[in-house]
This record gives sequence, structure tokens and C-alpha cells, in this order.
Amino acid sequence: MGDRMVRFGIIGAAGVARKICRAIGLAPNATLSAIGSRSKEKALKFASDNGLSREVKIYGCYEAVLDDPAIDVVYIPLPTSLHLHWAVLAARNKKHVLLEKPVALNVADLDKILEACESNGVQFMDGTMWMHHPRTAKMKEFLSDQHNFGQLKSVLSVAGYKADSNFLANDIRIKPDLDGLGILGDTGWYCIYSILFAADFELPKRVIAFPNPIINESGVVLSCGSSLFWDDGKIATFFCSFFSNLTEIMTAIGTNGILNLTDFIIPYVEKEACFSTDSQSTYTNLETGWGRLPNKHIVPTDVPQEVHMVREFSHLIKEIKENGSKPEKKWPTITRKIQLVLDAVKASLDRGFEAVEVGQ
Amino acid sequence: MGDRMVRFGIIGAAGVARKICRAIGLAPNATLSAIGSRSKEKALKFASDNGLSREVKIYGCYEAVLDDPAIDVVYIPLPTSLHLHWAVLAARNKKHVLLEKPVALNVADLDKILEACESNGVQFMDGTMWMHHPRTAKMKEFLSDQHNFGQLKSVLSVAGYKADSNFLANDIRIKPDLDGLGILGDTGWYCIYSILFAADFELPKRVIAFPNPIINESGVVLSCGSSLFWDDGKIATFFCSFFSNLTEIMTAIGTNGILNLTDFIIPYVEKEACFSTDSQSTYTNLETGWGRLPNKHIVPTDVPQEVHMVREFSHLIKEIKENGSKPEKKWPTITRKIQLVLDAVKASLDRGFEAVEVGQ
Repeated sequence: MGDRMVRFGIIGAAGVARKICRAIGLAPNATLSAIGSRSKEKALKFASDNGLSREVKIYGCYEAVLDDPAIDVVYIPLPTSLHLHWAVLAARNKKHVLLEKPVALNVADLDKILEACESNGVQFMDGTMWMHHPRTAKMKEFLSDQHNFGQLKSVLSVAGYKADSNFLANDIRIKPDLDGLGILGDTGWYCIYSILFAADFELPKRVIAFPNPIINESGVVLSCGSSLFWDDGKIATFFCSFFSNLTEIMTAIGTNGILNLTDFIIPYVEKEACFSTDSQSTYTNLETGWGRLPNKHIVPTDVPQEVHMVREFSHLIKEIKENGSKPEKKWPTITRKIQLVLDAVKASLDRGFEAVEVGQ
Repeated sequence: MGDRMVRFGIIGAAGVARKICRAIGLAPNATLSAIGSRSKEKALKFASDNGLSREVKIYGCYEAVLDDPAIDVVYIPLPTSLHLHWAVLAARNKKHVLLEKPVALNVADLDKILEACESNGVQFMDGTMWMHHPRTAKMKEFLSDQHNFGQLKSVLSVAGYKADSNFLANDIRIKPDLDGLGILGDTGWYCIYSILFAADFELPKRVIAFPNPIINESGVVLSCGSSLFWDDGKIATFFCSFFSNLTEIMTAIGTNGILNLTDFIIPYVEKEACFSTDSQSTYTNLETGWGRLPNKHIVPTDVPQEVHMVREFSHLIKEIKENGSKPEKKWPTITRKIQLVLDAVKASLDRGFEAVEVGQ
């Protein structure tokens, strides 16, 4: 396709689709070709609300997007319980799949999606935007620095926001038939992701959920936490909640250093993102102060993190289409690890907070 | 005693005593009158190393300090296992007791100390310096603010430092007969203190220690963590270690706000201390940034936090001596709560990480 853009179709007119619409528009190698919703009216309203070009095709069903030969990629922001059906169908139609998180209700479903992608030679990626921010690469550099960070000992991650009563009564994220993972699939997904990121994606051996989750009358988790344990003594804890102030805290503690940030999911501002580090810290004489202050790292970015994600995904698609590359396995491999830990935490919650081994 | 200074005696020439020596010198209402060590040589060396005035009496044993009628207060920085004996003896000799933390090996011992203080009408205070920094009062204001912080949901606390091989072989903090609580009594004490501080000193109902402590061959804990649970759903976790970079992280998450600081035990610099807060946080439209950035609060101080502690303690003593006030119960009450939680965590560690109810 030479200089041609990677052509995106979106199925579902969710709120997050608006953000990805904009990101596709800002990415130099991507273009939005079609939007499909459950009715033509909904799709037209979405197009109008988001000022979409008249060249974007408007479909009144999801199938039409998957059948459109002029679409390379399908972005799927549907409720989690619909992912298995539509992601597998997209892959069978040879569409590359950008799947919103949480990707699946459990790893068995995810494996069907990943198998469909692999057997059809299409790229899979989940919609975890912060992984694509240039800040994340800088943090990775620090976490890999033996002198300044050393070996990871502990990770803390907290993410949540204050849901209002309307959300808690009506949002898809509290409906067992739509997003049955509740807060665990919402901000808990990011917590687990941040912990595995800090651990260089080494899976923990076991998890133990905290024994005081908040669960609604339909059995959906609204607030919970867990600790994660590795055989080498590493430990992580996370806490996710629909009842806290907006929180995005990640702290990684190593033998020689610390990484700390408070906006890991969505940075405070679009143009740059920060994180803080300490290294080889000591007290002054008499222990009345610290020998050095934390370092503040500021990482500028030309485009927001969701554009980095769309750009990177589109780059992989171009490599496949133009150069015959294989789909990049890094992304589905990471996604599956997040799901394995999420499943273990869910199992620990379901089984009275007992220790649960993380699957393979 | 009118304008007279409150007269301190120190028993034991520990490292931390040097810091308190200086603090007594800087406090306007306190003076160092005597130092006692196990030998006159040690005491003389301490006096010389710390440039003590020739007016400070030098004693070659601890008893002489307790017997000196010209001493109002005894500061006790001895190893924990000696606290019971010397703190009780000090109280019986009508000396007010400033006791270094960890205060006792368990709450039964602590109760004997507190009972001796109470029955002899002397003030008790533990040596947790950060509680006396003016920053702490400002943090308390924020945590009490229903609009900007709301109800506490979660607290995270991490404190530790990287002990070298000499420390791990020889320091009193790894000796079962001296400081048998190990890291739990060292930085773990501060973690528990910070959690209870955030919870307005409401005791948790139960604790569950994390199942991967590091324990040395003598049975002393070198690294551990725990979660703490309240009946109303509040949860806290802490992690303390001799194997991490210097760490002093405290984060309190409320329904409407967040408090965050990374130097809660000893502030980075002596002249001021900071903390960060978020309140009523929301995302911008399209969720590409935050509606507002965190607030950084800078709290200046004329003197370091240990001077605030000595000054406040001396003030209480003057009130007792000059105005016939009763000893302030706030301080022993708090100390006892910290010990109760510490004991529960220790019990959970000892009993295979089972849930342990916090005593009363």
C-alpha cells in the first residue's frame, strides 16, 4: 500500500471511541474509514458529534465493518462480554484487531481471540494507551538500570475514580452481562499492567486478594485489592476502586532506587509527562535530611499517548502488509499475562481470598 | 522552675542520641544536664564527639542519671529489650520518660512502662519525631477536610533502607536479644504510625502479614509487609525492608482527595517539608488529561522536627511542674495503638500469615 494510510474501522460508539477517533486523525499513518454501530442513527450521531469527514463510511451494524474490504484494522471498544464474538469474527475476516481493555472475561476466551488472530495472520494489540507513551520507555530504562534502580523488591499500584450514583446504577462497567469484571477490569487492569511492567513482565507465582472487596447486588466488584508474590521475594500490591478520588499511583521500589508517579494511566497534560526517581539515597550526617533530592524526569511528546498507540499499531500493520512481516508477538504475549493475573485475582476473590497460583 | 529549662538526662550513647543532643541544645526550653553510658570512657567520648558543654554531667552508668535529682527527663535510646527495665526505673524515680521507638517488645511490656509512668505522675512520649513536624499538623488538616479529602479509603506506607553487610551481621537491629523486632520495629513502626495517623488513630480490626518476609538465622525479621483492615472497608498496606533503597512513602486515598509524600519520616531538608494533594480530581474532556494538577504544600519550619519534639515534650513537663497539670494522655495512647498493631503483625508473621485480630 506504499504511502497509503492504515484504514481503521470502529465497531461500537462508546465514549472511548471518541478518543481513538481523534487519535486516528492525528496519527500520520492511519485513517478512519468506517464506523459501525447497532443502528445507522447511532452511527450518524457519532459521526456528527465527532465531526467525522464525509468520507468515513457509516454502517448500521458491526458486520458491515468486518465485511468491508477497504478496512485493515478493527478497533473494538464494545463491552467486554462481546469481545470474544467480535474479535474472533474480525480476525477471521483478516482484520487486524485493536481490542479495548479489559480484553476478555477470562484467559480461555482471550486464548480463542489470540488463536483466531494468529491463525489468520493478523496483529493483536490491547488498548492500554500508557504503554505507548514515550515516558514509559524512559521509565523502563530507569527500571533496567542496575546501578540506579537495582533489583525490584516491591511495587504499589492504586487506580480508581469516584463513580457517581448514576454510574453505579447504569454504567456498563457495573453490569454482570456486559463488563462483568467491574473495577477489576477497569482500573484494576491498569494496576496489574503497571506491576507486571515494573517486573519486566515476569509473572508472579501467586496472588491473595484482600478480604474486603465491595461487590454490588449483581456480583460485580466495585472495589478490591490484592497482593502478588514472586518466588524471589518480590511483592506487589494494588487497590482499585469506584469510590476513591481519581487515583493513578505507581511506585516501584528497588534495591538501589525508587520510581514514583501519580498519573501513570493518563498523564496530567498532553504535551509532556513526568516521573520521579530516587537513587542510592542516603541521609545526611545526623540523619536530619537526605543527601540528595528526588530527580524529576520530564518527557515531552509531540502527540498524546493514544496517538502513539495508533501509530505504533499502524506501523506494525504496514510492516505486515508491505514487507510481509509476521505479527509482533510482544503485544498479545503481554496482554495474556495481564489476563492471567487478573483471572487469579478474580479467583482469589471468588474463593474467599485464598492464595491462588497464577496460570501459565 | 519559672523560666528554668527542662533538664534532660540521656542514658545510652546510641547514634540517635547525637541527634537528640543537638535537638535539646536547639530547643528554647530544654537543656542537657547529664549523659550516662555503660562506662565513663564511653560517656566521655560521646561528650567529646558531640562537643557537649563541660556543665553536662558525665556518668559511667545509667543508674546515676536516674538518681540525679537535678534531672527532669530521661531520654532512653537503648536497645528495645532494655526499655522495660530502664523506663520503669526512670518513672519510679519520678523522671519523665522520652522513649526511643520501638518502645517495647510487646504491648504487655509497654503496659508495664505506661503504668509506671501513670502511677508516678510522669509524662510518657515515644521518639517518633515526624509527628511533631508542623507539616504533620497541616496534613492532619487536609485529612480532616470532608470536602477536599472526604472519607479515608486506603493508605499505603513503605519505609526502608539498604543495610550493608556489616549492618546485617552486627547491628543491634538484627540481634534477637537487643532489637528483636528487626525491621518491623525500625521502619515498620513508622509505617504503622503513618497508617494510624491517616486513620485518625482508629485501630484496624485485623491484619494479615504478607507471606514472604525475609527472616535471618536468629529469627529477626529483615523485610516484611502486611495489610490492615477496618470494618468499614478501609484498607491499608505497608512494606518495610532492610534491602530497599531509602524509602519513606506515605499515600492516603480518600473519597474526594489524595495525600502523597515521599519523605514522611525525615523530610528531605531541615528548613521546610512538602506534601502533595489532589482534590475532586477529574479528567478533561475526552480524558486526555486532568482537570487540575496536584497541589504542592510547602511547610517551613524554624527548627528541625526533633527540636519540635523536644520542645513539645518540655512544654508538657513545665505544665506539670509549674501548673500542676496532669500528664498528657494523647501520647501514651497513640504509642499503645501503634504497639497493638505491631504486635498483631508480628503474630500474623509468627502464625503463618493468618488473619490476626488487633488487641485492645
